[in-house]
Amino acid sequence: MHTSDPFLFQLFFIFVWAKLFGEVFERFHLPAVLGEILAGILIGPYGARLVIPDDTIYSVAQIGAIFLLFTVGLETQPKALLSVGRTSLYVALAGVALPFICGFGYMLLRHDPIHEAAFVAAAMVATSVGITARVLKDMRVLHRTPARIILGAAVFDDILGMILLGVVIGLVSNSGTQWVQLAITSLEAIGFALLMLFYAPRLVRRIEPRMERMSTENAPLIIAIVLCLGLSVAAVKIGMAAIIGAFFAGLAFAEYSPRWNLHPRAVAINEFLTPFFFFSMGARLDMTIFDRKLIISAIIISILAFLSKLIGGGLPVLRSGWKTALKVGIGMVPRGEVGLIVALVGLQMNVVSPSAYALVIFMTGATTLISMPLMKLLFREDALPEEDFVERRKVW
Amino acid sequence: MHTSDPFLFQLFFIFVWAKLFGEVFERFHLPAVLGEILAGILIGPYGARLVIPDDTIYSVAQIGAIFLLFTVGLETQPKALLSVGRTSLYVALAGVALPFICGFGYMLLRHDPIHEAAFVAAAMVATSVGITARVLKDMRVLHRTPARIILGAAVFDDILGMILLGVVIGLVSNSGTQWVQLAITSLEAIGFALLMLFYAPRLVRRIEPRMERMSTENAPLIIAIVLCLGLSVAAVKIGMAAIIGAFFAGLAFAEYSPRWNLHPRAVAINEFLTPFFFFSMGARLDMTIFDRKLIISAIIISILAFLSKLIGGGLPVLRSGWKTALKVGIGMVPRGEVGLIVALVGLQMNVVSPSAYALVIFMTGATTLISMPLMKLLFREDALPEEDFVERRKVW
Repeated sequence: MHTSDPFLFQLFFIFVWAKLFGEVFERFHLPAVLGEILAGILIGPYGARLVIPDDTIYSVAQIGAIFLLFTVGLETQPKALLSVGRTSLYVALAGVALPFICGFGYMLLRHDPIHEAAFVAAAMVATSVGITARVLKDMRVLHRTPARIILGAAVFDDILGMILLGVVIGLVSNSGTQWVQLAITSLEAIGFALLMLFYAPRLVRRIEPRMERMSTENAPLIIAIVLCLGLSVAAVKIGMAAIIGAFFAGLAFAEYSPRWNLHPRAVAINEFLTPFFFFSMGARLDMTIFDRKLIISAIIISILAFLSKLIGGGLPVLRSGWKTALKVGIGMVPRGEVGLIVALVGLQMNVVSPSAYALVIFMTGATTLISMPLMKLLFREDALPEEDFVERRKVW
Repeated sequence: MHTSDPFLFQLFFIFVWAKLFGEVFERFHLPAVLGEILAGILIGPYGARLVIPDDTIYSVAQIGAIFLLFTVGLETQPKALLSVGRTSLYVALAGVALPFICGFGYMLLRHDPIHEAAFVAAAMVATSVGITARVLKDMRVLHRTPARIILGAAVFDDILGMILLGVVIGLVSNSGTQWVQLAITSLEAIGFALLMLFYAPRLVRRIEPRMERMSTENAPLIIAIVLCLGLSVAAVKIGMAAIIGAFFAGLAFAEYSPRWNLHPRAVAINEFLTPFFFFSMGARLDMTIFDRKLIISAIIISILAFLSKLIGGGLPVLRSGWKTALKVGIGMVPRGEVGLIVALVGLQMNVVSPSAYALVIFMTGATTLISMPLMKLLFREDALPEEDFVERRKVW
């Protein structure tokens, strides 16, 4: 804690650089996440080498990923599904299946190993609710049907993405590609997800009356952290990724989050921890890896990621008119943190190669950067004038 | 992030055990902090060996200490001094000088090296505002003059304690015990403190109007984290402890904390990080070190810590009657996190021996455990009946 302290310096420099890049991106109305990753790419070990994160920073980044997924779960309000449930489910299912098939197929065509192909394909699946929701909120169109379908679909999307990640990890760990093995692993992942979906909230509901009697200050936050870390450990124990457990822990608390004021506290922890995660993400990316061949692959996979979500997301709502279909499809396009974490898990398992990892980061950036202006263009007609918005807000 | 992940397991187990012990302590109306330390002692490497924290956990603990001191600074409202300023200053000065002299003298009598004596003495200085404030708040006597003197004195107390720590570290680092060296080091520490006290809040005031124009969400929290980490690094750079910088960063934001809603967010980050700090604190304590001789020393130093604060804190208010003097004196007795961190800094600098470290932990626990029931006894007469309390609260 004294004299030269490289860990503390790294902590400071990484936080400042990540937030600086994030702020610049926000000024240009781009997602801060991409800025934080870019900071890692540019000043990290493969860039200007201003900061070389050590293992401790990567450990902090890992906690960051866990709290990030916990918060994603916390924001995934199952109640949001009730209004547009069935449509959203179809949108999510098609919007998960199509990108996975396209990604998997293309990676196999590139002669990539089947495990790597599965990871990259899984990373193409999850829509970034955060980015879409923010654009829609800024445009004041969250009340419109397309927006509600998108947000509902994003809930299923996250859950399906997590199950898929579980299946892929199970597949790799058992190093078997036989169909029987695949079926067992899938059942395991789905079983874990169902158990979490039904048992975890029940556990929370059970704890709830006892919490009031607890003497510890901030008992709800502490119980939430315990469940978050506990389910992360449980997920690892049964051979899945820690973040899957963290996500379901968040989901279990989603209902109680407003009453216990959990979300702003989880966000505060995130504000400190996640910049290290996104920075580390960029710091692992060797930009010199992008030769002509890889750039072409990156562009192709980005186009596939874009079109497959657009079609997969749009098709189920086509009967509501092509414009609604287009809006829903485009709204599902941006990829984000979940896909990135999937790629990182693969990289850490030595299943995803640095070049495939680079593909996923490129694809995440590209889909988000392309879909954001398109969303703004498409949803412009739905936007309420500001005065009217305030009026209506009271009514809902 | 996959298969067996000892770091994540450690994170989970330490958090659960620390909070469990904390909860048990709270049920018995004892400070949770002591419970979390006890968890580290009992199940850590010198206890049941259920968890052996690795270096990464100690790094997380270090961030915990930094955020803890940042929060202590944040809670140190300089405005609280205005009403009882002069009295509080005298209470703080005498309450810092006397324990330091007693501790320093006794340690030298024990034939301890002068550097170690200085560290142990510095660790005896800082009153734990948190513990006293909580007892007084629970008893609803925060509005009474003795309580206000105590809380005001605790502000000066923290600042003086930090300056003293700076002096002691400077003394050790320059490995000179000449008076000239001591004078220079003292001036350095005081200079840093004054610079921080006057410049840091001005910096915050300057940043403030720009913050509104920032695009990043939660800009105030992020700026606060940046300043907290930045001043910690700065403190280390000039040869002081990181926590001194963190404390002054918190102090700089104290005025803006309510407007920016900083405190609950800092507390949320603390809730996650500090259990690792207190647990690690206990995990470093080898209980078998307590032979008969050390136990006697521990008891003597605890008595000295108790009496010196009681007299140092009480004397300056003796003209307000011996009862007020007793109340103020007892209210200043509990030691807490700041003293513990001072001892830990010394341990990490290899200046404080494991047995001296054990003395400080014993002394912290003893002063707190003895003074809490005494405070309750003394302040009982001041307590307002609950109905009346609600009435009066509106008036202040």
